[in-house]
Amino acid sequence: MGSIFGKLFQISTFGESHGAGIGVVIDGCPSQLPISPEEIQRELDRRRPGQSALSTPRNEGDRVEILSGVYQGITTGTPIALLVRNTDHRPQAYDKLREQFRPSHADFTYIAKYGFRNPEGGGRASARETIGRVAAGAIAKKVLATLCPEIAFSCYVESVAEIAMPQSETFFPQSEIESVPVRCPISEIAEKMEARIKAARANGDSVGGTIRCKIRGVPAGLGEPVFDRLEADLAKAMLCIPATKGFEIGSGFAGTLLCGSQHNDAFEMRDGKIRTATNRSGGVQGGISNGEEISFRVAFKPTPTIAKAQQSVNASGETCEVIGHGRHDPCVLPRAVPIVESMAALVLVDHLLRQRAQRVF
Amino acid sequence: MGSIFGKLFQISTFGESHGAGIGVVIDGCPSQLPISPEEIQRELDRRRPGQSALSTPRNEGDRVEILSGVYQGITTGTPIALLVRNTDHRPQAYDKLREQFRPSHADFTYIAKYGFRNPEGGGRASARETIGRVAAGAIAKKVLATLCPEIAFSCYVESVAEIAMPQSETFFPQSEIESVPVRCPISEIAEKMEARIKAARANGDSVGGTIRCKIRGVPAGLGEPVFDRLEADLAKAMLCIPATKGFEIGSGFAGTLLCGSQHNDAFEMRDGKIRTATNRSGGVQGGISNGEEISFRVAFKPTPTIAKAQQSVNASGETCEVIGHGRHDPCVLPRAVPIVESMAALVLVDHLLRQRAQRVF
Amino acid sequence: MGSIFGKLFQISTFGESHGAGIGVVIDGCPSQLPISPEEIQRELDRRRPGQSALSTPRNEGDRVEILSGVYQGITTGTPIALLVRNTDHRPQAYDKLREQFRPSHADFTYIAKYGFRNPEGGGRASARETIGRVAAGAIAKKVLATLCPEIAFSCYVESVAEIAMPQSETFFPQSEIESVPVRCPISEIAEKMEARIKAARANGDSVGGTIRCKIRGVPAGLGEPVFDRLEADLAKAMLCIPATKGFEIGSGFAGTLLCGSQHNDAFEMRDGKIRTATNRSGGVQGGISNGEEISFRVAFKPTPTIAKAQQSVNASGETCEVIGHGRHDPCVLPRAVPIVESMAALVLVDHLLRQRAQRVF
Amino acid sequence: MGSIFGKLFQISTFGESHGAGIGVVIDGCPSQLPISPEEIQRELDRRRPGQSALSTPRNEGDRVEILSGVYQGITTGTPIALLVRNTDHRPQAYDKLREQFRPSHADFTYIAKYGFRNPEGGGRASARETIGRVAAGAIAKKVLATLCPEIAFSCYVESVAEIAMPQSETFFPQSEIESVPVRCPISEIAEKMEARIKAARANGDSVGGTIRCKIRGVPAGLGEPVFDRLEADLAKAMLCIPATKGFEIGSGFAGTLLCGSQHNDAFEMRDGKIRTATNRSGGVQGGISNGEEISFRVAFKPTPTIAKAQQSVNASGETCEVIGHGRHDPCVLPRAVPIVESMAALVLVDHLLRQRAQRVF
Repeated sequence: MGSIFGKLFQISTFGESHGAGIGVVIDGCPSQLPISPEEIQRELDRRRPGQSALSTPRNEGDRVEILSGVYQGITTGTPIALLVRNTDHRPQAYDKLREQFRPSHADFTYIAKYGFRNPEGGGRASARETIGRVAAGAIAKKVLATLCPEIAFSCYVESVAEIAMPQSETFFPQSEIESVPVRCPISEIAEKMEARIKAARANGDSVGGTIRCKIRGVPAGLGEPVFDRLEADLAKAMLCIPATKGFEIGSGFAGTLLCGSQHNDAFEMRDGKIRTATNRSGGVQGGISNGEEISFRVAFKPTPTIAKAQQSVNASGETCEVIGHGRHDPCVLPRAVPIVESMAALVLVDHLLRQRAQRVF
Repeated sequence: MGSIFGKLFQISTFGESHGAGIGVVIDGCPSQLPISPEEIQRELDRRRPGQSALSTPRNEGDRVEILSGVYQGITTGTPIALLVRNTDHRPQAYDKLREQFRPSHADFTYIAKYGFRNPEGGGRASARETIGRVAAGAIAKKVLATLCPEIAFSCYVESVAEIAMPQSETFFPQSEIESVPVRCPISEIAEKMEARIKAARANGDSVGGTIRCKIRGVPAGLGEPVFDRLEADLAKAMLCIPATKGFEIGSGFAGTLLCGSQHNDAFEMRDGKIRTATNRSGGVQGGISNGEEISFRVAFKPTPTIAKAQQSVNASGETCEVIGHGRHDPCVLPRAVPIVESMAALVLVDHLLRQRAQRVF
Repeated sequence: MGSIFGKLFQISTFGESHGAGIGVVIDGCPSQLPISPEEIQRELDRRRPGQSALSTPRNEGDRVEILSGVYQGITTGTPIALLVRNTDHRPQAYDKLREQFRPSHADFTYIAKYGFRNPEGGGRASARETIGRVAAGAIAKKVLATLCPEIAFSCYVESVAEIAMPQSETFFPQSEIESVPVRCPISEIAEKMEARIKAARANGDSVGGTIRCKIRGVPAGLGEPVFDRLEADLAKAMLCIPATKGFEIGSGFAGTLLCGSQHNDAFEMRDGKIRTATNRSGGVQGGISNGEEISFRVAFKPTPTIAKAQQSVNASGETCEVIGHGRHDPCVLPRAVPIVESMAALVLVDHLLRQRAQRVF
Repeated sequence: MGSIFGKLFQISTFGESHGAGIGVVIDGCPSQLPISPEEIQRELDRRRPGQSALSTPRNEGDRVEILSGVYQGITTGTPIALLVRNTDHRPQAYDKLREQFRPSHADFTYIAKYGFRNPEGGGRASARETIGRVAAGAIAKKVLATLCPEIAFSCYVESVAEIAMPQSETFFPQSEIESVPVRCPISEIAEKMEARIKAARANGDSVGGTIRCKIRGVPAGLGEPVFDRLEADLAKAMLCIPATKGFEIGSGFAGTLLCGSQHNDAFEMRDGKIRTATNRSGGVQGGISNGEEISFRVAFKPTPTIAKAQQSVNASGETCEVIGHGRHDPCVLPRAVPIVESMAALVLVDHLLRQRAQRVF
């Protein structure tokens, strides 16, 4: 239960870290959309391990196969199934962990919930599960790009541990973000972040950070009062990414320090359109997009798998010492950027289709 | 669209600020639960306006009527409909606002979305809409209290503008929280908060702040990987409350400054049970409750309605000056406490029923 | 659970036969639709008891109140709540039935399911529950009429017990159907049906029958392979009406006697459009409407409440004799016509909105 | 849209007749259920083509691969993905049909709906799509067998064209049904049915018929008033099987000829339990199972693909002659038996989990 996301553009993901593979079924993608395996692969390559010295040495090609729903390069409107086979799995690396509960992992809670678990590589709780989201996100982005040609994402690592970018209104182009492994668009800060991540790894430790996501060109009118507000669905989409601990939109927590007269976004006419002079709302008012830039921030905790020995208990309730094996990223942030984008794209395309359904008069 | 919440314990809310009334239909409440109008009324009274000098002078009794689903004080398992009639509505107060777009309100976005709107008191975008949630939340709490007798909520105002409580591990009892109008359990800080709110109002302005919610006694095993994680559903539940801008669970944004070795919650045996030594996870690991205290924080922006004149535009695209009329709270935080609790209770009861459905072997 | 219907045009019904009232919340109705209480009332009056000597003498005005979602006669796009108060309830009529299980009623199964029930007038299992459906159906019909101006319903009683109309390709206009209490458009057969119903009542007995529903002007393309086929959703919509036992579309059960070469509907060009020469498909092929007349038939069992004494058992497992009290129709068919239409309209409008959402390229 | 079925035990199917393969993702299967590929394969083999001279000569091994959700032969509670590769596809057989609309097929409606289609073997509209349902049904049956050990299915071909079994109260064991290719448990009638099917094929034609499904051992209490009644969900489940045109439960259409006093099922005590003396209700009263045998019947039209030449039009609106190629069954009934069972099992397991969720007091 809980592996289906979306109301009209619905995705159903499956797969574990060390099983046969990872995949997704997309039900509700409009027909007549051109889509190629390469377009999906391009996004998967952005989250693939082994892209740089910053990530896990696990070597997975993560080649996607389109199993259904696309005929001669065009979507048919029927379910699109995408499959990525696992190849470099080494389940024996987890032998010692079969009985141990790794701190701040899902080992204990999966047992509490299901009474049974696949211990290999975290099973379903592995970040490899996000492959299905990124693959589906690639198609969601294509739908968005076709229906809202002005849409653009600027999603990047804003902080790693205490190394943080200054707040910026710049809409950094994706090409700049992608040009450095850490996916921070300001090069001197990117260098410090990389050094910080490498230091953590050298120390057998890990670090967390924040990702900023800005989206331009979203039409006004998306989001459904009262429960399926755009920011509520974005919050859910972000908090269901592994390792996330917080979400804020627009002024966020800092906005609680302002008075209403400071915080309100005055309306004005600009280029013949109704616009806001400021954007503390983050592009959403009353749960509905207002046409301004959507801007939100997501907190990721430090990777729980570390090389240092940690105290824990095992399934029999005996104290034990856990030492991380397996292959993990000392910092998930750089590879999480395409995941954040994908989840945001899935939310937006779903709301776009919902709005098309209901705005008929 | 978007006014139904939950998968098994589903609520469907309706109503506008100045229409006939506000209500909710609960579909999926277990049968044989004793529930009285008084139990629901008690929760509604906590969010009712006019409780103190801190809130809007709008005088609404907010009397609830149980229309269905309860027979001789016992739930029948069929839909429970609850209705609260509006009585003190003064739609004429909004005459000038029919055409104006109030800054940081939903006026503009409702027009962008629906092409038409009910301007009286914000219509559906009014915080009065939350009456339905609180009424349903009262029943959700009763279900929780019956199935998980150890469950307890400690939900309070942690900050108002710059006036903030120190971080605290105390689980403040509800009686202490409820004893002061501002719903902050530390009296000297509560006094400062009240003064801050009154000063804002005297100045024709408004303030925001944060609410902390702690929940004890939640059994381990609630939450559905991968999308319906407990923290994801809580995040959605909070971000769909009017005026919220942020959510964090456990260590939240501050946790991004720690290393993994500092952040991880070591497991240990305590009182014969597997427990964590610390609780930076905030009671949730891998999207599933681990039996520890659930702790999260929600950011509320300053109330957008202020008495000061603001620049804006109207529906014809002409510049205009907006001056707040209607009756509004200079700070929504105190009255938002029962709303936060209610939304949390709705999420928990839904996940509790889901877990009962699937954990059959 | 189970009282919400539809995916985009979602209705949530509530209420019992002898409680405060019956109602419905419609979430997902498009904005800017003109709708008056009178338009809803007109449909409710068609199913109201006491219209003729054929129905229960229960005297209910069934006056509808619009609680929300409509402002100055126009839908706002937010939930529309409709309430009909019960007035002529006489729960004491059911005193003897509190413990008895009436044969072929839901008394026993409600206890088996919920462990507790409201015995007054069948509670939620009463046909009064369909008020909410008819009220929502009135709005669904208005949406359909606006978006598909050529749409028309011809829904009538095709048989009562053994009194049956001959199969007919005529699309009887609603005015003819409504001109006789039994709602059968062929007057000589209508007279026999009325006599048959009156004879059953005089005998303390009841009769069943079938309703035919034909719908013209449905655009091709509605229905979602593979599970939400148009005929599958229609079948569910009909089988969830109280007292129904069967559904068939197009050639139905009789079609199983034909060979493929006899049964297939050849395509041809007619008036410049692709049409079928025959319509054994009943307007649906592969789960999707093909633009031809949709034609289906629904079986209703004889009303289970009869005046004759019947053997049964009570909640204590003791044998008892049940004698019908309360006020019931000896034949539900005439009043079921607007219910069948309403459920069909709800299915069609939902699929129409779904198709608008997905057919974007 | 429309390829997800179920509320708690949710299946999402994908795949086309001549694409890479057919599959299903099951989300919501309880953990700790032993399941082997062989158990799934056994059910798939029952619907596989080439089992006898009665079915299409298409030769597909239909070997199932479990991609996820099962670890060491035990379900983990996470999504179970099942894949069957297509092997014997010959898309060139459909070259002539690319532009032609085959009578009573989904060719025309898929174009009307999606504007584009995969013409090879009917694409998604092919009966091969039901592989995913049967695979998921195998797991549903295992859950049922474990939670309700007394459950048993007796599902068989009751009629082929005019060759019909007499109505029977016998609960034919599956072994008898499976012993003949036509899956009719009365051997002399089975022989006539086989002869009838072979005659139709020899004549380049096809035949339809009906399937009866009886289920014993279903606990009382399953089914959700008012929309998700057990019979309503069964009706939907049956009418979404390709080629179905009708559904009736219990007395069905024939029951409309009886008076209430003849039709009602009197309650009586039997073996210390409350039972009904007759079962015209078909095991369901008020939308809820009453513990009696569930019995329903489904009508299947004759296979639309026939070898005879038929008049039609093509996508350009030109008259053309369609001659069936591809490989098709002259009668789908025998192979539809496991599909009917699977869909019924999916409905029952979903309702069983729903009832476990809500019946907590």
